[in-house]
Amino acid sequence: MVSGISSGAQAVPLYQEVADKIVRLIEEGVLRPGERVSSLRKVSEQYGVSVTTAIQAFILLEDRGLVEARPKSGFFVRVPRPVLREPAMAKTPRAITAVTVGALQSRLFEAAMMPHILPLGGAVPSPELLPTVKLNRILASVARRAGKSGISYDMPPGSEALRREIAKRTMNAGATILPQEIITTSGATEALMLCLRAVTVPGNVVAVESPTYFGVLHALEELGLKAIEVPTHPRDGMDLDALERMLKTRNLAACLAVPTFSNPLGALMPDEGKERLVRMLEERQVPLIEDDVFGELHHGPHRPRLAKGYDQTGNVLLCSSFSKSLAPGYRVGWVAPGRFYERIKTLKLTSTLATATLPELAIAEFLANGGYDHYLRSARSFYAANVQRVGQAVAAAFPEGTKVTQPQGGFVIWVEMPAGVDALRLQDDALAHEINIAPGPMFSPTQGYKNCIRLSCGVPWTPRLQQAIQTLGKLAQRQL
Amino acid sequence: MVSGISSGAQAVPLYQEVADKIVRLIEEGVLRPGERVSSLRKVSEQYGVSVTTAIQAFILLEDRGLVEARPKSGFFVRVPRPVLREPAMAKTPRAITAVTVGALQSRLFEAAMMPHILPLGGAVPSPELLPTVKLNRILASVARRAGKSGISYDMPPGSEALRREIAKRTMNAGATILPQEIITTSGATEALMLCLRAVTVPGNVVAVESPTYFGVLHALEELGLKAIEVPTHPRDGMDLDALERMLKTRNLAACLAVPTFSNPLGALMPDEGKERLVRMLEERQVPLIEDDVFGELHHGPHRPRLAKGYDQTGNVLLCSSFSKSLAPGYRVGWVAPGRFYERIKTLKLTSTLATATLPELAIAEFLANGGYDHYLRSARSFYAANVQRVGQAVAAAFPEGTKVTQPQGGFVIWVEMPAGVDALRLQDDALAHEINIAPGPMFSPTQGYKNCIRLSCGVPWTPRLQQAIQTLGKLAQRQL
Repeated sequence: MVSGISSGAQAVPLYQEVADKIVRLIEEGVLRPGERVSSLRKVSEQYGVSVTTAIQAFILLEDRGLVEARPKSGFFVRVPRPVLREPAMAKTPRAITAVTVGALQSRLFEAAMMPHILPLGGAVPSPELLPTVKLNRILASVARRAGKSGISYDMPPGSEALRREIAKRTMNAGATILPQEIITTSGATEALMLCLRAVTVPGNVVAVESPTYFGVLHALEELGLKAIEVPTHPRDGMDLDALERMLKTRNLAACLAVPTFSNPLGALMPDEGKERLVRMLEERQVPLIEDDVFGELHHGPHRPRLAKGYDQTGNVLLCSSFSKSLAPGYRVGWVAPGRFYERIKTLKLTSTLATATLPELAIAEFLANGGYDHYLRSARSFYAANVQRVGQAVAAAFPEGTKVTQPQGGFVIWVEMPAGVDALRLQDDALAHEINIAPGPMFSPTQGYKNCIRLSCGVPWTPRLQQAIQTLGKLAQRQL
Repeated sequence: MVSGISSGAQAVPLYQEVADKIVRLIEEGVLRPGERVSSLRKVSEQYGVSVTTAIQAFILLEDRGLVEARPKSGFFVRVPRPVLREPAMAKTPRAITAVTVGALQSRLFEAAMMPHILPLGGAVPSPELLPTVKLNRILASVARRAGKSGISYDMPPGSEALRREIAKRTMNAGATILPQEIITTSGATEALMLCLRAVTVPGNVVAVESPTYFGVLHALEELGLKAIEVPTHPRDGMDLDALERMLKTRNLAACLAVPTFSNPLGALMPDEGKERLVRMLEERQVPLIEDDVFGELHHGPHRPRLAKGYDQTGNVLLCSSFSKSLAPGYRVGWVAPGRFYERIKTLKLTSTLATATLPELAIAEFLANGGYDHYLRSARSFYAANVQRVGQAVAAAFPEGTKVTQPQGGFVIWVEMPAGVDALRLQDDALAHEINIAPGPMFSPTQGYKNCIRLSCGVPWTPRLQQAIQTLGKLAQRQL
């Protein structure tokens, strides 16, 4: 198949000939969307051209939107965009709402625990995609070496080794956070809960994205807080004009946002949006709780900046964890609570007293010497491709008019089906087919988004997954 | 020194002669209080008498209150009782009190983290006394074998293996609890917090022992709950007549008690008290939160019964952990919440989502195959002796009129000094001497017990500890 490039009479530049050959491979399905194209070196060898020519060919293909570069991973066949229609920003009710989403959450997690069910419901990375063996081995080695420090309390603020590693990483995300400004927690769940407890009293109103992560809504519910939904754009995140209007007319106790790869939309707020968000809340002394659990899983070359990076007064409480990127079951998260540091440290005592010591130490060791960045690069590349693959499969299998988000990070997609489809019913039907999905009403205190679902792309791309998407499409179609 | 027994003309029975010889050894300080007397076999050899005679001698000594039997450990020289005066039950204010103990707790824990400070403040067993190496080795082995289950979420109710082991052990404590009635937690701290959140709303009143564990008071404080202090006897626990009167006149949302080895008093409520407590609360549908963290550390031969054992309607929420008996830093606790099971399971999701998987599995493995009972036997024997040694040292070193509890389990003692001594000042002075203690006001929402301190006997008996007790005595004396 592969042959040298002819030097014909036509004035077609060599790199274009190479590019055309690659286009053929894509068109004929030899190279599929999301797949890696050969390396520059290999292309240069295969087609008998210089590496410079190969580079020019790839630039041309990139210009045409046929391939895309991923940092240190090479060029990948781009998933053709036109097929995917992005959902519009939802009109959210302006009402302040008491929250009742706990029951839906329990149901989701119960299904998520069953090993025979395909887990597209939780935003949980499949263990196959995590550095399972390496991390467990590090924990084993840390446990053997730890001696008495391994079984002793590691009282708040928690492991210094871990806090140092976290501080280093936040620097790469545009925020200068010192180890002594960080408190470790039992996952981001505890971090968020502590932040909400620190800045609110029951009855207060908290502004959240719409749609938003059900864990947040459940926490609000349990704390007797009310939610006000800020319309959120699938690409740019919270509508800051809308938030500003709310701030002028309402008494908000806090704003809780996921500016980098929001959940479920996967929206990435641009830097200037993050800065504006921080400033407008700072002016009114309304604390910003920033949840960054997906921040490290950017598909593009650059780590997006943290909103915390624009914080000059300690008004931003930054929460994160290693549950999306390393080990959900280790239960290690953290919070950099700015001016609420002492309050959070005290609250942590009544919540769990301390974070489990050895899991903390194991993650610190993995971050320092385990090749975390190396692992993250392959994870990012996998999720980027998988999000596109699953999105494409949804576009192909779901009823006419279905829209799908195309997030630039993380591993969940948000699917908006035609108005006639009931997501809760679809969840029931899907469970009968051993597929778990997260229905839209979980993501709203007003239980809107009745025709939407969130799908996790944190599972390997297998024939079973492919089949499951087709099944979901058929089940949705049947409702129309 | 040791010689055969003469068969004189007097009608003194042989066993009495043996007993008298041992009395001499005790009186002359050869055998010191808390020390083990030779085994029956050795006594029989040394004095040239039969084992039966040796037994009779020990029974005589026990009758006279000079030695005491400890199960499977032999006979120990009893610490002479008259020296130790037990504190009386405190008159507690009948007021309902908003709680503010968090700051004192933070201070205590900060000192507890400093390695050069002698840790008599926290009720934390010294790592030297725990099966550190074995447990860490088990965790290492579990981590190596666990594969993907090790890094995955173990969603509530948590590890079944662990819940099975816990269920087995509660059976020995007179309660029939099934594995499916248990939910694992991040330590007893989380369990207590979840229970309080499950059965109260802010502003509610909760009945607590007086004095009571500051962690409980801090939790009440953070939840906006009010405490009412039930007078508590240093030996028998909560004054149930007083509690009954309160139940008749006040609207209580819950009662939180540590019926087995309360903290700080070490009181053990008799079985009939436990039954009465459960019944009177059940009648009025006031939930009982039973904290049993010290239950396994009985000094006597029998595991005291759980109040939960008398629960017929699911009104008792039983909380415990492995932080006192195995590994504080593993953060593994549990709750058997009776009729509040579903509520607690849901609340756990917003608190920490799940308990750390590998520490759970390691403790399950230790309970099943690691010799937990063997370890507990030696721990009980050590704590029994140490509680007596420290109590004796306090009685000898502290100002005239000082009283000390003599708990039958656990490893904390409560010291009531003369009225002129200020425990908070003593804590300051002690810290300057690198000794941490827990001042009385931490144990009361009204910050009473100003002349009391709690001392942990969970550290090995060393010259440094002996010296520290003398220093504390002098510092207290100086205040008079």
